Amino acid sequence: MKLYNYFRSSASFRVRIALQLKGLPYDYVPVHLVKGEHKKEGFASIAPSTLVPMLELDGGERLSQSMAIIEYLDEVHPETPLLPRDALGRAKVRALAQDIACEIHPLNNLRVLKYLVRELKVDEETKNTWYRHWVREGLEAFERQLAALPRSKYCYGDTPTLADCCLVPQIFNGRRVNTSYEGLPRTMAAFDACMAHPAFQAAQPSNCPDNEP
Amino acid sequence: MKLYNYFRSSASFRVRIALQLKGLPYDYVPVHLVKGEHKKEGFASIAPSTLVPMLELDGGERLSQSMAIIEYLDEVHPETPLLPRDALGRAKVRALAQDIACEIHPLNNLRVLKYLVRELKVDEETKNTWYRHWVREGLEAFERQLAALPRSKYCYGDTPTLADCCLVPQIFNGRRVNTSYEGLPRTMAAFDACMAHPAFQAAQPSNCPDNEP
Repeated sequence: MKLYNYFRSSASFRVRIALQLKGLPYDYVPVHLVKGEHKKEGFASIAPSTLVPMLELDGGERLSQSMAIIEYLDEVHPETPLLPRDALGRAKVRALAQDIACEIHPLNNLRVLKYLVRELKVDEETKNTWYRHWVREGLEAFERQLAALPRSKYCYGDTPTLADCCLVPQIFNGRRVNTSYEGLPRTMAAFDACMAHPAFQAAQPSNCPDNEP
Repeated sequence: MKLYNYFRSSASFRVRIALQLKGLPYDYVPVHLVKGEHKKEGFASIAPSTLVPMLELDGGERLSQSMAIIEYLDEVHPETPLLPRDALGRAKVRALAQDIACEIHPLNNLRVLKYLVRELKVDEETKNTWYRHWVREGLEAFERQLAALPRSKYCYGDTPTLADCCLVPQIFNGRRVNTSYEGLPRTMAAFDACMAHPAFQAAQPSNCPDNEP
């Protein structure tokens, strides 16, 4: 498998975690988002979405959207499951993942930040306030969701799930603009548990071949 | 089952379509988003996310996030499946759904539009330009994804899927700000096929009990 991705892309990071958790080897193909490589001929001709991550299977099929990719990997490589066995548990884990992937992350995408600066002419501080606002508000909602669940080591249960694959990159992401994570005990306990796990360590941006310190 | 929802909420509309496609009866509990009812004691005390849709099962369990709810319904009520049988097909359909639910819809949520007006002080036209920009850009990417798939009646294959449950509300949504849908033949053909289907007709905002013409 080949994973087209970018060290700092949160959605790419989610898939790298899943691949590491399952112990699946893959070729890392860097696509430099800040240099706009995702919109240039090479990548755009094979990825109609022009988005990373994009997973190319050994048979040549190409998959997009991080949560869809992770669920595919979980179905085809069921060892180390990333979703609970029961339908209700799966619904809870998917909802936690979507609380991040649909409510927080889209607002702080590179293309959105560019629009704020180029079209709405906001200054750096206003842009960072926007960024922190959505991360903080979204994680407060996430914390309330966790608080409604039984206590557990990770977001849901005592093994990592799709929800943890989404949470960890979001925490990294918000740190870049100094978001406060005060008062989010369940969320940060799950994050800390993940970061003590070698798969999450291995997948983090600083361990990527295209990392820029 | 009870569906807490709002006639104009795109995410609520997605779940209504799935319930109609599966022929599942439910109680419609309106939550008036524009009046802020989702943040008030009654709803907020039972929905930690303060988001609609929220599906309350007969056993009292509460599910949030539209795509997670639809996958739950599909697992528990497998008649009229909303996802293909094969893992690759499921990955493609989920990716199409997420192209809308993660790339387009979050940018035009009510709370985001409010932030634009209240915090960034943008005027009505700038807000509507923002809105149209993300719908149009997102649907162009969606069209490229469809164009890479075999021709079919609906978004994926010849029966409605989770992808159609997400597409139709997005088309309704973008119309409110007069987004152009020119040059999106595959997308609009799938939309038209859906709107010829009685389940999509029944679920639309104008047929909701809380509809405001």
